[in-house]
Amino acid sequence: MRRAVALAARGLGSTSPNPVVGCVVLDPRGEIAGEGYHHEAGGPHAEVHALRAAGEQARGGTALVTLEPCNHTGRTGPCSRALLDAGIARVVYAVADPDPGAAGGATTLAAAGVEVEQGLLADEAEAGNLAWLTSVRRGRPFVRWKYAATLDGRSAAADGSSRWITSAESRADVHRLRAEADAVVVGSGTARADDPHLAARTSGARTLQPLRVVVDTGATAVAPGARILDAAAPTLIAVADDAVTGHLDGLAPVLRLPRAENGRGLSITALLDALHERGVRSVLLEGGPVLAGAFLTAGAVDQVVGYLAPALLGSGPAALADAGIGTIGRALRLEVTDLVRLGPDLRITAVPIAPAPEEN
Amino acid sequence: MRRAVALAARGLGSTSPNPVVGCVVLDPRGEIAGEGYHHEAGGPHAEVHALRAAGEQARGGTALVTLEPCNHTGRTGPCSRALLDAGIARVVYAVADPDPGAAGGATTLAAAGVEVEQGLLADEAEAGNLAWLTSVRRGRPFVRWKYAATLDGRSAAADGSSRWITSAESRADVHRLRAEADAVVVGSGTARADDPHLAARTSGARTLQPLRVVVDTGATAVAPGARILDAAAPTLIAVADDAVTGHLDGLAPVLRLPRAENGRGLSITALLDALHERGVRSVLLEGGPVLAGAFLTAGAVDQVVGYLAPALLGSGPAALADAGIGTIGRALRLEVTDLVRLGPDLRITAVPIAPAPEEN
Repeated sequence: MRRAVALAARGLGSTSPNPVVGCVVLDPRGEIAGEGYHHEAGGPHAEVHALRAAGEQARGGTALVTLEPCNHTGRTGPCSRALLDAGIARVVYAVADPDPGAAGGATTLAAAGVEVEQGLLADEAEAGNLAWLTSVRRGRPFVRWKYAATLDGRSAAADGSSRWITSAESRADVHRLRAEADAVVVGSGTARADDPHLAARTSGARTLQPLRVVVDTGATAVAPGARILDAAAPTLIAVADDAVTGHLDGLAPVLRLPRAENGRGLSITALLDALHERGVRSVLLEGGPVLAGAFLTAGAVDQVVGYLAPALLGSGPAALADAGIGTIGRALRLEVTDLVRLGPDLRITAVPIAPAPEEN
Repeated sequence: MRRAVALAARGLGSTSPNPVVGCVVLDPRGEIAGEGYHHEAGGPHAEVHALRAAGEQARGGTALVTLEPCNHTGRTGPCSRALLDAGIARVVYAVADPDPGAAGGATTLAAAGVEVEQGLLADEAEAGNLAWLTSVRRGRPFVRWKYAATLDGRSAAADGSSRWITSAESRADVHRLRAEADAVVVGSGTARADDPHLAARTSGARTLQPLRVVVDTGATAVAPGARILDAAAPTLIAVADDAVTGHLDGLAPVLRLPRAENGRGLSITALLDALHERGVRSVLLEGGPVLAGAFLTAGAVDQVVGYLAPALLGSGPAALADAGIGTIGRALRLEVTDLVRLGPDLRITAVPIAPAPEEN
């Protein structure tokens, strides 16, 4: 199963709106007969790849798969059917499929006499499929907020300069996150100050570029000639219902959304709903501090990835602006799930935990 | 030698103005015959403790000691003499004594026919004696700046509340740092906002309390009844030459110092010189952000210890205020020397590195 989880990860960034899935087929003696993973939406599922590789050796064997085999006919047939046709005697899957349209594969298999077992390495498989599982459970894209800051929490110096706070290793890692995401989102301040490109710069030829999204409420931040308007990746400019967008005609699609209830920026919920409708299952939120504050206020951050450079500035904008928190008892508490040194920097991955009771 | 380094650490916090030193004496067959460490200034040195424990077994044996044996007669006799008297045949020391008044022990021993070797585990022994070695080399106390902050660099919430940002484990660790330091220093903002106590709360009965120092330039932050004025530890209020301090008469000694050249607060150099004269070899700078900025501007921070809580605030004071850095190329770059998880928190230890050439 560990091998299946590793295989699944190869699909990160190219399977959306499908999950990543890995599968290992063992022959009746328990030897590996075939391996596979889901490469891209519309293509064969992991089980089909693995069964093809195994051929006749699959008959009477075991399939280890990271996600419950699907039971529905989409662009491909149901995997439960494929496993039965191949004569698999036992199916072990790590995580149940939470998607009501696809679930039921385990029941179908068991009803056909296959021995079915669930839960092996569930935590690892769940972590590997975090974005997709979160999006299915919440009905909106998984949101990963990435920031880069000094030890004193600054994301730029007093004069606005920020190239480069973090190391080349950290910046390369951010490109990996972009390649894994279906969409990369920035706010108007970042678009204006940094003229970011936001495409993923990775070596793999198969990299699917993420959708580049600018939250440009007043349609004033993205001007013709902005780097984000080039052909390297698709782009979407999210603006307020009443924004004037003539200058963007023919340059990028415009997404009109209601403003946030507090009047500051767009409704984050509406933004995520609109992206979800477009098949976006995972969002890399790259800032800036104001937009990150709006996402956090909306309870719409599922994971925080902080790149901390061992440096001090003492002035300059903070990595995070107002998130509606006024006192320490209301701090958004996180749990650190991963801590890695990247060159000189630290990468801290954390997820929100349930708020602690207020302290008096 | 590893054992000697560990023994030396037992003296941390109680040997000032002396270094911490550990010593292991081996008999001629190489078996451990005696161990010792320097407990406190005025008491016997590590070598003397170890030689006493070894007795006659030391004759013809080896002494492993973390610091070059001293050659001078202070409150105790020279260790070079004690080693010769005990008939030690070989001395291995990790780090040379940089103190001109005490150095020369190795030369004395070698001249008397003892086999002398230097450098074994020098890095570890150096790290263990970091504060003392730094103070001798720089002619001022070693300064460790400790801060506690959220992942977004806030040391308090917008309403000023900060209890508690970090976990009980982190706070206990801070008490250990206090117990190791000769003096704990805070600024007027912290004194006013937090009414801190600053004594070390540790289990060891032998803990020497640090000198509590408030940098209260205008003599307006520490009022009668402040917790820092209690009898738990000595206290010193550093004020400007011209400050009016009648309200402190009989409550705490007042140290008058010139103001900083930029007019903001006291001269940090003058403060450190005055503390050094009083025998303070290590300072734990506990903030707040303005005083930390002043120390950094003065180039007077030797080590940074950051307690990072996995929490987000989005507003509130930053851990570090103005340090005279306006652009990213001037950022104070550090090297992470230690990274530890303390309960839910991270403790990052870092030291300043030479400034990188300016980027264009």
